[in-house]
Amino acid sequence: MTTDFGTRDWFVGTMKGVMLRIQPRARLVDITHEVPPGDIRAGAFALAAACRFFPKGTVHVAVVDPGVGSARRAIAVQTADCSFVAPDNGLLSWALTTQRVRAIHALEEERYFLRPVSHTFHGRDIFAPVVAHLSRGVPLRKLGPALTDIVRLDWREPRLLRRGIEGEVVYVDRFGNAITNLRQDALQRADWVVCETRGGRRRVPAGQFYQAVPVGSPVALAGSSGFVEIAVNGGSAASVLGLMPGSRVGLVLRALQRQG
Amino acid sequence: MTTDFGTRDWFVGTMKGVMLRIQPRARLVDITHEVPPGDIRAGAFALAAACRFFPKGTVHVAVVDPGVGSARRAIAVQTADCSFVAPDNGLLSWALTTQRVRAIHALEEERYFLRPVSHTFHGRDIFAPVVAHLSRGVPLRKLGPALTDIVRLDWREPRLLRRGIEGEVVYVDRFGNAITNLRQDALQRADWVVCETRGGRRRVPAGQFYQAVPVGSPVALAGSSGFVEIAVNGGSAASVLGLMPGSRVGLVLRALQRQG
Amino acid sequence: MTTDFGTRDWFVGTMKGVMLRIQPRARLVDITHEVPPGDIRAGAFALAAACRFFPKGTVHVAVVDPGVGSARRAIAVQTADCSFVAPDNGLLSWALTTQRVRAIHALEEERYFLRPVSHTFHGRDIFAPVVAHLSRGVPLRKLGPALTDIVRLDWREPRLLRRGIEGEVVYVDRFGNAITNLRQDALQRADWVVCETRGGRRRVPAGQFYQAVPVGSPVALAGSSGFVEIAVNGGSAASVLGLMPGSRVGLVLRALQRQG
Repeated sequence: MTTDFGTRDWFVGTMKGVMLRIQPRARLVDITHEVPPGDIRAGAFALAAACRFFPKGTVHVAVVDPGVGSARRAIAVQTADCSFVAPDNGLLSWALTTQRVRAIHALEEERYFLRPVSHTFHGRDIFAPVVAHLSRGVPLRKLGPALTDIVRLDWREPRLLRRGIEGEVVYVDRFGNAITNLRQDALQRADWVVCETRGGRRRVPAGQFYQAVPVGSPVALAGSSGFVEIAVNGGSAASVLGLMPGSRVGLVLRALQRQG
Repeated sequence: MTTDFGTRDWFVGTMKGVMLRIQPRARLVDITHEVPPGDIRAGAFALAAACRFFPKGTVHVAVVDPGVGSARRAIAVQTADCSFVAPDNGLLSWALTTQRVRAIHALEEERYFLRPVSHTFHGRDIFAPVVAHLSRGVPLRKLGPALTDIVRLDWREPRLLRRGIEGEVVYVDRFGNAITNLRQDALQRADWVVCETRGGRRRVPAGQFYQAVPVGSPVALAGSSGFVEIAVNGGSAASVLGLMPGSRVGLVLRALQRQG
Repeated sequence: MTTDFGTRDWFVGTMKGVMLRIQPRARLVDITHEVPPGDIRAGAFALAAACRFFPKGTVHVAVVDPGVGSARRAIAVQTADCSFVAPDNGLLSWALTTQRVRAIHALEEERYFLRPVSHTFHGRDIFAPVVAHLSRGVPLRKLGPALTDIVRLDWREPRLLRRGIEGEVVYVDRFGNAITNLRQDALQRADWVVCETRGGRRRVPAGQFYQAVPVGSPVALAGSSGFVEIAVNGGSAASVLGLMPGSRVGLVLRALQRQG
């Protein structure tokens, strides 16, 4: 389960109650419910970072759904390894880049919904019961008509510049680590990274782990999600350097340095 | 589980450990642990909103218990569908309005407690073990003497006025949506709702979902909990309008408008 | 599971996915994921307070690991009742004071890891898979070489003074209760406790539960973790009195008062 419902109200617990009523043997695992409210990009990133580590056959349900009740579609997607249920607003687009898609169906068959369906809580009334029915073996095609594609978020690719590669911060985690869209293998060919910080451009050395630099100092490392991450040893790169999603980060390549 | 223990300390995890020691097959589901500390009304509302979506036979445990260790009673309640264990301070009163109560017993039989019982953590020492014993089939009457009633919170009913119905905000959720005590069916006969906001009285149009109004605009809708909800599309009604529990909300009925 | 990963990113959910892939029947229970980032002492206290309430045979995994990727060891510890997996940075030291240790092994056998191992997320790549293998019955000795001891945090023992006992606050919980290092049995011989507060030294009376004093007043009580706790009825001792970890708290013994 990946949602922006938070844990301080009864939303997630209610979804779990609905699922267990239909499928008492369900194993329910939370990826996160603390996606910033309505932030589809953050939810898509979290889901993409986590989903490939789950068992084959997992049914993922993702609900970050500012358009709930409007005309946006709800979908189920079957891949070679698992399936996904979500609003069709881009939330699945990055998770699916690493998966072989087998089928996409709209959720329209109301007999798999809770009735009546509210206009504001499809997590409880549509997504939770559909997931539970899927995990009981209901085939995707029974849920509604087949679709050929889903809404996809744009993924800003890093740009190749004369002196290196320029990308940007795409996610800031709880520790204040700033995850970029720069592939981590590029870091092996770089000595340092240039970050656009609150106080101007700043060189950050590449390192292998947080404690590779003194406490309070920034370091660029190969993060666990496959991308270059800017961190501060014992602190928060987000608050120390003022990094946030969209902040530009450049990778200065070694070979190019020699030429320069 | 519905508590105000939060998730940053070890309180909830410890309760789960205690329950699994007695009943290793228990399915543990969190409704919320983020009830504001000591806020019995908020806990009662969350439990009432969620409990009817759980499987038949569920044992609900609710702990929002500022009087822990004092003379307040602890109780177990059996209804037609499920059972509840909680301090007798009103926490169950709204959940039970939708349930047929079969039996109420005080928790006094110490052999179902963890020993010694602390004065500050009955969640671990009384409620968790009692719930686990109940889920193993111990009958309610073994827990202590039968009672005829429980402490009940007052529920402020909306007042019928000359021009409509006046109610109030009873709960503000994570998204800043303000849930009122106005039954949602009344909304079908209203064109707008009048809210007492920080900046004075304000008309809010009725809509079916959040995106029925422009981003940043308020809308009154039939919420998923059965009550009229004031929301702001893409924002927080609580912060934009200054709504909080107790803020007055009036529903101007259509028929009455025509007469006026 | 006891970590400082928080619940707003995908870290904990990913660990759970990894564990379920190896051991689909695992029962996963969260103690807390909200240990303050990098605060080994707070994590050690939470684990010590909770672990003895779990079923025999539980495998505890604890990850508060500011040194991840550096030369610090990772370990598994078998005790008479359960086992623990954690970085060897002191995180287990207080939990193990109440356990009979049977064996300690370093985690070095890479066939029990996820490959490749990242430098920043050993929770996913080392600790989660090792825990899952342990819960499937892999014996500790297969994980790596036996060790004779672990890194231990110092525990500041209270000092015996002429007029009583002086200790300090070691943990502040969600409610603002300040837990000290003073053993609760000493409270029976004391009439009051002297706290070093923001506004100078203050006498706090001993009581049995929160509501033993008027709303807003402080009380010293025998906390559920075995230590003297300073609380404020209906409020937060941390914010009302300005108590925090390290604040000095003295227990004035009754016998000594009479002599004085």
